[in-house]
Amino acid sequence: MQINAVIAQGGGPTAVINQSLIGVILKIRESEKIDTLYGAIHGISGIIEEQFINLNNEKLKTLEKVAQTPAAGLLSTRDKPDPKYCERIVNIFKQMNVRYFFYIGGNDSADTLRLLNEYTSTINYDLTCIHIPKTIDNDLVINDHTPGYGSAAKFIAQAFIGINYDNASLTGVYLGILMGRHAGFLTAASAISSKITSGGPHLIYMPERAFVLDDFLRDIEQAYKKNDRCIVAISEGIQNKDGRPVAETLIDMPEFDPHGNMQLDNGDLGSMLSNAIKKDLGVKRIRTDRFGYLQRSFPGCISSVDSREARAVGEKAVEFALKPGRSGSVTIHRVGNYKVKYMLSKLEDIGGKTKSMPDEFINSSGNGVTEKFIDYVMPLIGEAVPDTAVLDGLNILKHDITTS
Amino acid sequence: MQINAVIAQGGGPTAVINQSLIGVILKIRESEKIDTLYGAIHGISGIIEEQFINLNNEKLKTLEKVAQTPAAGLLSTRDKPDPKYCERIVNIFKQMNVRYFFYIGGNDSADTLRLLNEYTSTINYDLTCIHIPKTIDNDLVINDHTPGYGSAAKFIAQAFIGINYDNASLTGVYLGILMGRHAGFLTAASAISSKITSGGPHLIYMPERAFVLDDFLRDIEQAYKKNDRCIVAISEGIQNKDGRPVAETLIDMPEFDPHGNMQLDNGDLGSMLSNAIKKDLGVKRIRTDRFGYLQRSFPGCISSVDSREARAVGEKAVEFALKPGRSGSVTIHRVGNYKVKYMLSKLEDIGGKTKSMPDEFINSSGNGVTEKFIDYVMPLIGEAVPDTAVLDGLNILKHDITTS
Repeated sequence: MQINAVIAQGGGPTAVINQSLIGVILKIRESEKIDTLYGAIHGISGIIEEQFINLNNEKLKTLEKVAQTPAAGLLSTRDKPDPKYCERIVNIFKQMNVRYFFYIGGNDSADTLRLLNEYTSTINYDLTCIHIPKTIDNDLVINDHTPGYGSAAKFIAQAFIGINYDNASLTGVYLGILMGRHAGFLTAASAISSKITSGGPHLIYMPERAFVLDDFLRDIEQAYKKNDRCIVAISEGIQNKDGRPVAETLIDMPEFDPHGNMQLDNGDLGSMLSNAIKKDLGVKRIRTDRFGYLQRSFPGCISSVDSREARAVGEKAVEFALKPGRSGSVTIHRVGNYKVKYMLSKLEDIGGKTKSMPDEFINSSGNGVTEKFIDYVMPLIGEAVPDTAVLDGLNILKHDITTS
Repeated sequence: MQINAVIAQGGGPTAVINQSLIGVILKIRESEKIDTLYGAIHGISGIIEEQFINLNNEKLKTLEKVAQTPAAGLLSTRDKPDPKYCERIVNIFKQMNVRYFFYIGGNDSADTLRLLNEYTSTINYDLTCIHIPKTIDNDLVINDHTPGYGSAAKFIAQAFIGINYDNASLTGVYLGILMGRHAGFLTAASAISSKITSGGPHLIYMPERAFVLDDFLRDIEQAYKKNDRCIVAISEGIQNKDGRPVAETLIDMPEFDPHGNMQLDNGDLGSMLSNAIKKDLGVKRIRTDRFGYLQRSFPGCISSVDSREARAVGEKAVEFALKPGRSGSVTIHRVGNYKVKYMLSKLEDIGGKTKSMPDEFINSSGNGVTEKFIDYVMPLIGEAVPDTAVLDGLNILKHDITTS
């Protein structure tokens, strides 16, 4: 009887998630243990709907192009399975004699595999489940970092380099709102621009520190007085000290009354903070950008390191699946400055857990990052971002504060 | 007596505006007619505040790095001069014996030069004013296109390529709101993604056509039914048939009452359109991005053609200033497919005027572009965007409608 495998992709896309997919496909082609590798379309939902494609038939040339295509080549899903869902998956797998299941995703996908693994143990069906990490949020525990983060960080760094010069050109306050509900890694990546340009961002607010509006306004006032401009990076997930989202707390404040004049873009964090700055500091020119979805699937500035590691976790997944042949999650561990090694960690140690920025990466004022974070993040963005410079005759930009 | 020149940059930055600056600086170094070239800091405001730097002193190595740095290397301004302001500028110029003034900017900057030129004629002060075009909006008349547009178009094209795969992965409706109050060129550039991926954007709305909410909802319904997803690019400047901004008209509608439940992000076009789609079509997953400022100064994906032409208009400006030696605006004209030639046009023909998308570039339904526009825009983005592909086994993306 043929022994088969299934691969699927779950959760939000990244710019390099397909490198992992192609890593698995090509590595399996080298093995004689697995006959056919099927791709499930739209994650685990493609399994229960029996939407499969035979990946043995894909041409190498196409695969290498898919590898450098952002977002999920097999399409994705947000489905979270319950025990019934697991049962249906395993029933399909039994019919197809699927003995290996590779799932590329974040901590939700790892948790799906944990559930599936528990279920197959109870019914004595031999299924090796391998979780392959990806997430731009960089919030998987045990991992030094996750595939997808390096490229998103590079996009953010480049964007803030551009914003730094743009904001110097026309001055004023700039607020950039970045993804990340619980972990500030993406927002912190903006600091790469200060490192490279010795300009902005001048202030960085991450969800790991309680946000105090008054401190925020004083920080901006101080930076603005010093530089006649101020660039701020803010996580959309910032919360007050009681753990309430800041956007929600601002609506409650008298000056943000939904029927009053101050209210603009009800519920929109950027607009509300912008209004507060206008009112409190009297700064006229304030620009706000919400980075949104661009950073997770932009094909133009992929990190070479991220790309290489995303391919490697796919290859390693197949190696671990065949030997030792037990279920688990491929994890990335940093060795020196800069190499990585890959290990197989337990699914229950990854699934459903969230990593935050460690204290040593956040400055004592809670409004910026440390040099340690810069040392951590720089190797992940790969080759340097484009070289930029200021005219020697122009001292203006040199008065900038740094974030450390 | 020494003969001197001044250069300044005005208006919103672009990714290649400094190529023009460096083009002027290096070309003037070849000439013996001009002794010192001064850079005015923050556009014309730097002239009246006598904030100059001597550009003769800048090192070649720095200049070449500045050339590839986005945004205004000499910093910028939004100042629009009145006759008094002009008088003050010319008084400073007289003291410094400035006989050539180069101003890199859009139609406002051209208009500033026209004013200045008129004033110097009346007082018989010999000043050659050369306008050097730049604007991501691509809205200068006479010009086939303007430096800055190609790089912004490339950023938008790459972003939509990423969005195309992202939206295919998790399906739903995606709305991308792009800059452009009067001209739809930037929004139209999203169509490059449909050309390359044969995916989205499926619908494009430009300010050149009156926006009708009901038609918009029917368009999306149709596209969504066909593809189970829909990507839409919308100019922030869209207006109804009476010329009122759409965001304003939506607030007036009963379902967008500022005190009602439907109201969210008061005044924010993307949120209001998103609510209308949710209510009318019952689509659950709708994502909205406002591209904002990223597209105009992102250093990572500059068009090589745009970069080269931006340098050339700076060089040509110096050539035109010295021979024939009259004031004017450097304009770009397309010859064949694809070359350009540069001419000196009259300041009054450029200043304060705005070009829109010609009819032949917009489809008959007013919700997309034509092949003619694609033929027009493709050469401007330079080298091709990164190669992407879909797995051969995956037919899903192939059902996409095209926008033509």
